[in-house]
Amino acid sequence: MRNIVLEIAYDGSRFAGLQVQKNAVTIQGVVESALEKILKRFVRIKYAGRTDAGVHALGQVVSFSAENAMTAEQFKRALNSLLPLDVRVLGATEAAPEFHPRYSAKKRWYRYIISTSEVQVPFFRNYAFWLRRSIDIDLLNNYAVNIIGVHDFTSFARREPDQKPFREIFECRIRRRGEFVVLDIVANSFLRKMVRAIVGTFLELEKNSEPPERVTEILQAASRSEAGKTVSPGGLYLVKVFY
Amino acid sequence: MRNIVLEIAYDGSRFAGLQVQKNAVTIQGVVESALEKILKRFVRIKYAGRTDAGVHALGQVVSFSAENAMTAEQFKRALNSLLPLDVRVLGATEAAPEFHPRYSAKKRWYRYIISTSEVQVPFFRNYAFWLRRSIDIDLLNNYAVNIIGVHDFTSFARREPDQKPFREIFECRIRRRGEFVVLDIVANSFLRKMVRAIVGTFLELEKNSEPPERVTEILQAASRSEAGKTVSPGGLYLVKVFY
Repeated sequence: MRNIVLEIAYDGSRFAGLQVQKNAVTIQGVVESALEKILKRFVRIKYAGRTDAGVHALGQVVSFSAENAMTAEQFKRALNSLLPLDVRVLGATEAAPEFHPRYSAKKRWYRYIISTSEVQVPFFRNYAFWLRRSIDIDLLNNYAVNIIGVHDFTSFARREPDQKPFREIFECRIRRRGEFVVLDIVANSFLRKMVRAIVGTFLELEKNSEPPERVTEILQAASRSEAGKTVSPGGLYLVKVFY
Repeated sequence: MRNIVLEIAYDGSRFAGLQVQKNAVTIQGVVESALEKILKRFVRIKYAGRTDAGVHALGQVVSFSAENAMTAEQFKRALNSLLPLDVRVLGATEAAPEFHPRYSAKKRWYRYIISTSEVQVPFFRNYAFWLRRSIDIDLLNNYAVNIIGVHDFTSFARREPDQKPFREIFECRIRRRGEFVVLDIVANSFLRKMVRAIVGTFLELEKNSEPPERVTEILQAASRSEAGKTVSPGGLYLVKVFY
């Protein structure tokens, strides 16, 4: 059995998320459906990160088992001819049997984009969170420093049953790019809705000019109600998974 | 009667074009419907350029007559609270009664965007024309030189009844921007589907390494069948109207 690994990009706007669900269009669903046409049998795919409804990916990683003689490059072409245009295979390789997109991953890089234009730009309505005010980038970066390292992120996530709340943040940086504010965050892995809760919390604290120590207090409280709102999914991108 | 002028931007992806049609969602339709809610009566809007289905605008200009005491700025806010997020009012002013968005316009600037990425980028599927090959920008600019000035553009347009085929092109320039090729064209006005026919023709000529004189021959033939295909609407943007 061969282990085929795909790097895929998708516009999450019309999807109910990555993970397959009954009566909903999902990225996993359209990929498995295209694969079934190629392989003439159903295969389940594995994936690196379960992105939520409306969240995008520039470099999601998925894998599947195949017995036939097609090369990875042939899978890429065949899938791109069958997949809807909002899901694209950027690259394909064959990996060792033990490679697993989620369990083998060492780091994940997510990006969150905020648009600060005076009027919401129609083209970015599904691709950035619109916040019509000036943002203190330096203060956001001071907050970011306080989440670097290993922490209990209970305050910043929707906990799943049996999931440990500790995660290690390697990098978190915010910068201005024209009318956009861009947050890049790299961690070993993320809890559910964690990036969007971090962004929502940082923006609430920044609006009220709260000191960076508040971030540490919120982490230590280990209570979701201590932190801010989960911002909208359209601004979030899974950029890259590192192995 | 006051003459209110709006600058609007829209994502044309889901619209059957600017102009109102029965049983189809149009930009004119949603703007007039929002205005009717504000003014409590139906008003017809006038517009600078009738963009086709799938074509976008960064600076379309529309106007309407109003009797009430709302300021232009209040119209902008009220409309943005009622319009769908893919149509936005960027600015509003009050103009002299004789101002007409189409007849008062002196120049129109359109942009056409081609994406040359190896795999089609899912985020740009409705916002750029995907052409997976290298493009000779210098050759395209040599073609562009030959359409500058006043010409009969019958070969490059879908003629409307009673429409004169002469148009004056002030500027036409092509440049590379990363993985994109961007064509900017400014004219006094355009015939229907003219920009997309020009782009389609230039790309066909360039693919076959035809000399710039072919453009002049095609213009002189004054026959639509002499020129190339009309490329897809998603790459086209009405950037700005000059008065």
